[in-house]
Amino acid sequence: MDFINIIDYIGTFAFAISGIRLAAAKNFDWFGAYVVGFVTAVGGGTLRDVMLEVTPFWMEQASYIIITGLALLFVIIFRRYVVRLDNTFFIFDAVGIALFTVVGVEKSMEAGFPVWVNIIMGTITGAAGGMFRDIFINEVPLIFRKEIYAMACLAGGVVYYVCRWAGLPAIAVQIVAAASVILIRVLSVYFKVSLPSLKSIDISGHRDVKEDRE
Amino acid sequence: MDFINIIDYIGTFAFAISGIRLAAAKNFDWFGAYVVGFVTAVGGGTLRDVMLEVTPFWMEQASYIIITGLALLFVIIFRRYVVRLDNTFFIFDAVGIALFTVVGVEKSMEAGFPVWVNIIMGTITGAAGGMFRDIFINEVPLIFRKEIYAMACLAGGVVYYVCRWAGLPAIAVQIVAAASVILIRVLSVYFKVSLPSLKSIDISGHRDVKEDRE
Amino acid sequence: MDFINIIDYIGTFAFAISGIRLAAAKNFDWFGAYVVGFVTAVGGGTLRDVMLEVTPFWMEQASYIIITGLALLFVIIFRRYVVRLDNTFFIFDAVGIALFTVVGVEKSMEAGFPVWVNIIMGTITGAAGGMFRDIFINEVPLIFRKEIYAMACLAGGVVYYVCRWAGLPAIAVQIVAAASVILIRVLSVYFKVSLPSLKSIDISGHRDVKEDRE
Repeated sequence: MDFINIIDYIGTFAFAISGIRLAAAKNFDWFGAYVVGFVTAVGGGTLRDVMLEVTPFWMEQASYIIITGLALLFVIIFRRYVVRLDNTFFIFDAVGIALFTVVGVEKSMEAGFPVWVNIIMGTITGAAGGMFRDIFINEVPLIFRKEIYAMACLAGGVVYYVCRWAGLPAIAVQIVAAASVILIRVLSVYFKVSLPSLKSIDISGHRDVKEDRE
Repeated sequence: MDFINIIDYIGTFAFAISGIRLAAAKNFDWFGAYVVGFVTAVGGGTLRDVMLEVTPFWMEQASYIIITGLALLFVIIFRRYVVRLDNTFFIFDAVGIALFTVVGVEKSMEAGFPVWVNIIMGTITGAAGGMFRDIFINEVPLIFRKEIYAMACLAGGVVYYVCRWAGLPAIAVQIVAAASVILIRVLSVYFKVSLPSLKSIDISGHRDVKEDRE
Repeated sequence: MDFINIIDYIGTFAFAISGIRLAAAKNFDWFGAYVVGFVTAVGGGTLRDVMLEVTPFWMEQASYIIITGLALLFVIIFRRYVVRLDNTFFIFDAVGIALFTVVGVEKSMEAGFPVWVNIIMGTITGAAGGMFRDIFINEVPLIFRKEIYAMACLAGGVVYYVCRWAGLPAIAVQIVAAASVILIRVLSVYFKVSLPSLKSIDISGHRDVKEDRE
């Protein structure tokens, strides 16, 4: 469907930009920046497809390879304007994770898995790319420490099935689920809401790590 | 089988606790801690299943998702007692890697692979979760630097086949192999035995890294 | 074919040595060094095979397990000479990535994928092992920051198809493609050529990272 495709490509572009920018900040060369952008954009869906035992989606059409290339070009050409476009990219990114979540839920459902697996697959599709990005650039994954990110995908998956069970038509289910991901994500950033952390009390005295960890 | 299931769940619980605690020490939020706990518990078996080309085991029953949730609840509620329970968790963890190793060997064997692949798959099932955990929290994997961990799994796999070739009944093979993993693990920690490292002489002058590495 | 096998094994040996040395520098124990060496040697091909939905190649013959063991023995026994052999290992490594690239392109082609997927699979086969190695030892992947490495594999894949389309016989296609990988790699190191980086202008102000990143 055309509209879904356009949003899919916009999401891919926004994800790739986020990977390329962080790679650039770590002094990666162009090729490395491209790889990190690509992994950010397709990593979640690839992990999902490997676990669903189907061919990774980006191997079936060249669009994702090309869009990542356009994202790299965009960063190279417009580098001095990129920071100013932060809010635009943030919205693109939120729309991207929302759509990726819905796509992930549906692909897993079509493969015949139960509801709880589908919700997890939706969350992985939306959130795992950002996690791989942070592992590549050797940072502690940010999506687990600031604002609500993966949890927004999970909530979107739950909303998907609530709407479905309520008997909404397929297209309405998709729209409401995606909108709830975007809403949670945007509100959490706007109001600086994060999930609580467990840090407050030291519980890291695992015998395996007592001596070695900071 | 009931008894095996109980041990499997206890091992999963212990693995999840270890991931959640280390994630908490790194300031991950609850959701991030859950993810790290889950990856620690099921990561090894998932890598095994992907390489054996079967559906990852945790997608076939919701138990592992639920047990990781219980582990998170446990850490949140009993956080001030968690450190005191170190020795208990250490035993759970040792029992867990022992059982995971045996399960991994047998699953690979059922898939028709040769003995040496099965032993490797057992080792991956027992030890790779802890490796993924350390990559997620951005630490050099601890299991390769302190005490005997992955090597205990490997030894357990070898013992498994020695017993099998000696004609022991299936249940005895499982018990002796698992017991040998536990024994090696416990003794190595008790006597602070580690494998030798290669550090003593500088051999890191690879031309690719000469200038960049510390 | 015998000649291909010999080069394959030499490449595996060189890759394993590079992983073992970097692991040793990070204080990994012998077993950990073995694992890092093995992942460096077979990681790229394993990722390729998982995405192509075939059994990872190293599970079909024990050679790669054994060669990695020999590499570990070699480093342990000849540790004081290892640094002096840098240039030899560099050539082995270049030959290794060249052959791995050609093998990866052909395996993907046999699985029926289009040309652009095959070139990517060739690049992953040649370059991803070094990337996994750096993630394991908790470093920012070096192959994306210094000299031309993954790009040499990509270029080799393109040369492969140019030669093929030009009607060269299969063996000539393989030789010319592999030679071009070696040539690009060697020349880039000799003349200290790197791809440009994006660092020069700060573009890392992504809203997700503004506060947390250095």
